This record gives sequence, C-alpha cells and structure tokens, in this order.
Amino acid sequence: MAELNDFFAEVTGLIDRELDLLIPADGGRPTSLRDAIRWSLFGGGKHFRPALLIAVGRAFGAGDRKLKRTAAAVEMIHTYSLIHDDLPSMDDDDLRRGRETCHKKFGESTAILAGDALQAMSFQVIAGDTSLSLEIRIELISKLAQAAAKMVDGQQLDLEAEGRETSLEDIEQIHRNKTGALIGFAAEAGAIIGGASENDIEAIAKFGERLGLLFQITDDLLDITRTTEQLGKTAGKDVAADKSTYPALCGIEQTRVFASQTHRDALDAIEPFGERSLMLRRIAEFIVSRNT
Amino acid sequence: MAELNDFFAEVTGLIDRELDLLIPADGGRPTSLRDAIRWSLFGGGKHFRPALLIAVGRAFGAGDRKLKRTAAAVEMIHTYSLIHDDLPSMDDDDLRRGRETCHKKFGESTAILAGDALQAMSFQVIAGDTSLSLEIRIELISKLAQAAAKMVDGQQLDLEAEGRETSLEDIEQIHRNKTGALIGFAAEAGAIIGGASENDIEAIAKFGERLGLLFQITDDLLDITRTTEQLGKTAGKDVAADKSTYPALCGIEQTRVFASQTHRDALDAIEPFGERSLMLRRIAEFIVSRNT
Repeated sequence: MAELNDFFAEVTGLIDRELDLLIPADGGRPTSLRDAIRWSLFGGGKHFRPALLIAVGRAFGAGDRKLKRTAAAVEMIHTYSLIHDDLPSMDDDDLRRGRETCHKKFGESTAILAGDALQAMSFQVIAGDTSLSLEIRIELISKLAQAAAKMVDGQQLDLEAEGRETSLEDIEQIHRNKTGALIGFAAEAGAIIGGASENDIEAIAKFGERLGLLFQITDDLLDITRTTEQLGKTAGKDVAADKSTYPALCGIEQTRVFASQTHRDALDAIEPFGERSLMLRRIAEFIVSRNT
Repeated sequence: MAELNDFFAEVTGLIDRELDLLIPADGGRPTSLRDAIRWSLFGGGKHFRPALLIAVGRAFGAGDRKLKRTAAAVEMIHTYSLIHDDLPSMDDDDLRRGRETCHKKFGESTAILAGDALQAMSFQVIAGDTSLSLEIRIELISKLAQAAAKMVDGQQLDLEAEGRETSLEDIEQIHRNKTGALIGFAAEAGAIIGGASENDIEAIAKFGERLGLLFQITDDLLDITRTTEQLGKTAGKDVAADKSTYPALCGIEQTRVFASQTHRDALDAIEPFGERSLMLRRIAEFIVSRNT
C-alpha cells in the first residue's frame, strides 16, 4: 500500500506544519509547558485521525486549506487524551511511541496542564478558522466538544471495568466512547467541511463509527500479539491491568472474525460513494492489516 | 450590602438551575463521573464569575436568557480549574469550600476526568446556545478558549515559582494569567452579549482585568489573615508552599495599599457608565471588603 503510506506521510507533513505554526517552539507560553506540549504533539504518531478527516474531506471536494486546521484540532484533542490516559493515576504508562510519556519526561503537573492547554487550544483553532463559515465552525465545535466529553466517559468506564467482569456490550460501550467518538468526529468533520448532504454525512458517520470500532479491536489484538519493541508502547499491559478487551472476552480467533465483520460493515457504509472513496477503503484496509 | 447579597443569591439560583439542566443528576454519563462533576459544581461557591458576567450583561441591557448559558460555561471552566489545581501533583489540597476536594472524595483519576469533561462541556454549552447569534457564539468561544489556555499558563508559572525568588512582575504575570484572564473574560462576555460598542467592551475588559488582580491580591491577604475554618479551605498554605504572593513580597501593609489602588483603577474604568454600573461598583467593593 505504497499510496497509502505516501498519503500518511503527506498528511503528517501538512499537520505538523500547521501544529508548528499554532504552537511554535519559541512561542509565548511557559517554556516547560510548551516543550511538554510539543514533545507529545510531535512524538511520531501516524496522525490517523487527521488523515481520516482529510481523506473524507477530499472525497467530498474540500481543499486542504479548509481541512487542515480542524484536522490539527483533532490531533490536539487526541494528544491531550493520550497524555492524560498515560498518567500514574490512570493507565500509568512510561512509554508511548517508543519514547518517554509526557509525565515521565516533564513531571505529572506539567503533563496534566499540557493536556488541559491542548484541549482549550483545539476549540480556539476551529473558532478562529476564517476559511470556514460561522455555521460550519459552530457545528464542528459542538460535535468536537461532544466527542471529547464522550472520550472522557469512555476512559472512566474503562478504568471502572478493570478487574471487573464485563460483557461484550460493556466493551462496546467503552470503545464507542473512548475511541469511536473522536474517530467518528474526524470522519464526519471531513464530510461537513466538504459540504456533503445530510444522507452522505450519515453514511460517513456510520463508516467512522465502524472504523473506530475496528481500530480498537485490532488495537486489542496487537496488545496481545506484538512485543513492546514492535508496538513502541508497553505490550501485554491490557492483560496485566486485567483490562476488558475483545480477545480476553471472546478469544483471539473470534476477535479476528469480529474484526472482519466490522471491516465489511465499514466498507458497506461507503459503498455508495464508489471511486471517490478509494482512499477511505485503503484506510480501513490499513487498520485491519495491522493485525498480522 | 444587602442588595449585593440578594444579587449573588439570585445568580446562584439562576446558574445552579442551568447547571442542573446541563448535567442532570440522573443523566447518561458514568455515575461516578457525574457525581464527581456535580460534587464540585454544586460545592457552595459564590459564583463570582457568573455574577460578574450577568451584572455587566444587564448593565448593557441583555436579558438573563441570553446571559445564563455563557455564565454557566464560565462556572464550568472555573470549577474544572479548581479540581485540577487541587490535585496531589499540583497544590495538593484536601479541602475546598469546607468540603473534601474532588480527588479526595472520588479518587484522582475520576477528578482529572471530571475536570476534562467540564472543559469540553463548557464549549459545547456556548456552541449550542441558540439565543445568541453565530457570530457572538464564535467570539465567545474563541475568547473563552484563550482565557482557559492562559489560566493553564498561569498555574504552570505559579507551580514553577514555588520556592524560587520572584519579582513583582513575576507575580503579576502569574495572576494576570491564572485568575485575571477568566475574570476578564466574564466581564467582557457580558458586554459582548449586551451588544456593547468596541470602546465600551475595551473599558469593561480593563475593569475585568483590574478586578481579577484585586481578587487575587485580596485572596493572598485572606490566606494570611484568616483561619482555615473561616476560609473553608486550608489557610496559610501559600506560606507553607513558599508561594509567590503579594504579602510575601511587599508585606501586608503595602499589599493593602496596592489593593486600594487597584480598586480605584477598576472604578475609573467604569466611571463613564455612571448609574448603569452601580452593581459593578458594588462587586468591586465586595471584593475589597473581604479583606478585613
């Protein structure tokens, strides 16, 4: 999938430039806080959510100029959630993308504040994006705020489920909130900015929702089947923390079947878009193929 | 100041009803998270920031219907900042408004997430306030996000200043960000919603900025002159933490002189508004008179 890799590299360049403008290395805020924010923002992530937003937006004819700031805002929210999730009182993780987590490197209070600042700035970025109409900006802010609140609900449910017996519905509820809501927003935002019809936005929202679930299922599988070195984050920690995961509940084989089904559901949702959705199909394929 | 007390009681009723509608006791999110959020929101605070917003808004002829949701959003941001500031890795405080702090009662991870959720919801509340034009909503969101980011900068600067020698400029910079920015936003938001002219908004912003500084100076004084029981939060903790405060730098008497000057500056800023600004003058008077 050379073309998809090229696309991810292109989006990473685009978004990193945007983030570098928004939070410059020699900017005004306290140095330590800025360094902590930039450490986590430029940590070598694949920028999957911005890539999804841009792929959907382009499929509906939007130019990058209209897409890039909302895409950067999504990456800011995602990064803040990783910083907070890694904290000692949460998932207590020392390693992220092969490097020290924010609180390991900069201390706990700075990490909490870096996350807090990123959340505030993400809304500011969209509010100030004059390439978008006021109406679209308000719709994006409202939906991003809802997704961000759901993400928090999901993390809380996830922490509460540790060591407790959980059902498949429990796990789905956790993931729909914790991972699915922001991925769903990324897809929907691309369609909204692209001026898609109500029907098309609905189809894309369905696609995003299935994609988010697929992302989580394969993440659960990777946690079991890969080593820490391969992952760039601590492997096997779901099992260690007695986390509720699909493989823990259904076994690896059944989880793989579930992944295939979810993949098909995602493709069905964008079937009406035909050739326009080529990159979206490739993104779905990429997620599923991580699980090798 | 019976009339001012009546006004605060009225605002508290108005804002608490609004917050109760926005985050109902039997709402959808995880119970523990909702309880933690409501514990801190309904903790008996004076709702000073919403009161300021409503007083300014009324001075410019805005009805409560247009003011109450933004006022609730400001209280949500303020409450989130208190929850995070009280955390063990920050100011490590067990007591707030005479009750256990959020993390003492609900645990650290729930407290962090309660703050995170409140921040997201505050932007959602303004984005969804259809009593305001799209233009005003975007302006409010943009300015609230800037104030929230500054608040975080101020907390970082404050933590970094602990145990370090600080100048009067350092302290002013901390307070302008940590306390001043959100109080300034509350004042400015009332004027924006009230449709005030550019000049009038500027005067109100100046008033808000001075009021924020006055609030912090008198807070510093109260920390020294009052007991824990009187304050409802741990007294003397600024000194214990070797915090940079006005009294620590200039002594109590000089700080009182500084408070009087700042009070006069605040009143000068709203002098052009004459009778309309009666409640604003009373609020400034209230802040200064806390220091007895």
